[in-house]
Amino acid sequence: MKNAGAQAPASENGRVFSAGFRHELDALFQWRRDVRRFLTDPVPDDLTRAVLAAAASAPSVGLSEPWRFIRVESVAARADVIANFERCNADALAGQPDDRQPLYASLKLAGLRDAPVHLAVFCDEDGEQGHGLGALTMPEMRRYSVVCAVMQMWLAARAMGLGMGWVSILDPAHLSRDLEAPDSWSLIAYLCIGWPEEEHTDCELERAGWEDRLRLAGRILTR
Amino acid sequence: MKNAGAQAPASENGRVFSAGFRHELDALFQWRRDVRRFLTDPVPDDLTRAVLAAAASAPSVGLSEPWRFIRVESVAARADVIANFERCNADALAGQPDDRQPLYASLKLAGLRDAPVHLAVFCDEDGEQGHGLGALTMPEMRRYSVVCAVMQMWLAARAMGLGMGWVSILDPAHLSRDLEAPDSWSLIAYLCIGWPEEEHTDCELERAGWEDRLRLAGRILTR
Repeated sequence: MKNAGAQAPASENGRVFSAGFRHELDALFQWRRDVRRFLTDPVPDDLTRAVLAAAASAPSVGLSEPWRFIRVESVAARADVIANFERCNADALAGQPDDRQPLYASLKLAGLRDAPVHLAVFCDEDGEQGHGLGALTMPEMRRYSVVCAVMQMWLAARAMGLGMGWVSILDPAHLSRDLEAPDSWSLIAYLCIGWPEEEHTDCELERAGWEDRLRLAGRILTR
Repeated sequence: MKNAGAQAPASENGRVFSAGFRHELDALFQWRRDVRRFLTDPVPDDLTRAVLAAAASAPSVGLSEPWRFIRVESVAARADVIANFERCNADALAGQPDDRQPLYASLKLAGLRDAPVHLAVFCDEDGEQGHGLGALTMPEMRRYSVVCAVMQMWLAARAMGLGMGWVSILDPAHLSRDLEAPDSWSLIAYLCIGWPEEEHTDCELERAGWEDRLRLAGRILTR
């Protein structure tokens, strides 16, 4: 984003962000990782609340704000989540081709045991808020709005030095039942938050040899 | 995010973001809007490429990087998109309760005619990249990864002074056919990007009286 800003037209009735900020934002994107290795040190509650506040300023279709949260704190509730993950991860391992099973088995795919903060994030599929605007032909927009909120939480957390990991190796319907989520809530994300053991600009799956990043250029067509 | 950072444990092997940066990031969240009123001034291509680069540093399930893009530039392709929007918006208006139809009809819901940059963003549902990791029980994670990329684009664009609008009042299958998208690509977002006519910290739907923001506190349960 080096050259950004110089070409902006005259209208300056809004907030201007400096080149220095844009540089730091780019660094935030590079240092934002999916974290699975957490210290067990507690996270002060004002930081958890700041992460949640970042969710609340996300865009949402029709201003429907369909995001809902369950803070998963009890030992019993966390044990259910860990058991859910372990069942699903065993199935996922079994479903990998033989030649990839040893590598899959070696990966650390969740930080559920160590992360001090667990948040289950849902979409309320039924809320009247927003009056359906923007979601008639693409009802999935409500769920996408919740994903936008999660992405803002991720960036806000990392800016504060916290790591976040998104665990998707879960049976979402089973997890919703275990957590006694309201019937109209669909699970979007299960998030672990805490202080990371280590920090990197490359992702753990790259370092472990699971997959490589590809160049963006090959993914852009023009019409 | 005022108090953030002071309590971080000793481990400092990663990039630290300053309190000043966190304050600016919070301002970015507040000034990031869904823009529907654009100036027609062109956007330099290096800025469009910087917005796309922000997509490429988003998280993706299993490092699958399923995001795909079509830059919609031709008059004919844009006319198809506008016609698609107008059909869907007429249907959406007709589907609103009688007492809300005048307000709905008064809303400006897309900046398709003025925005200099149009990007259609897709999820490749078939790619081998990522080897299915994290997407067995929640295959929607591929689409959610693309939404994460869109959210990063939105923030990067606004940091450069650009506005972005996400148009979802579209028939996605029809649009994909019109754009001759590959069969395995699903439309996630249609984005308008350009210089905003005006800037606000409150959203246009709030100003127009369509919907109000609600407090976050009522949406958080604990288990």
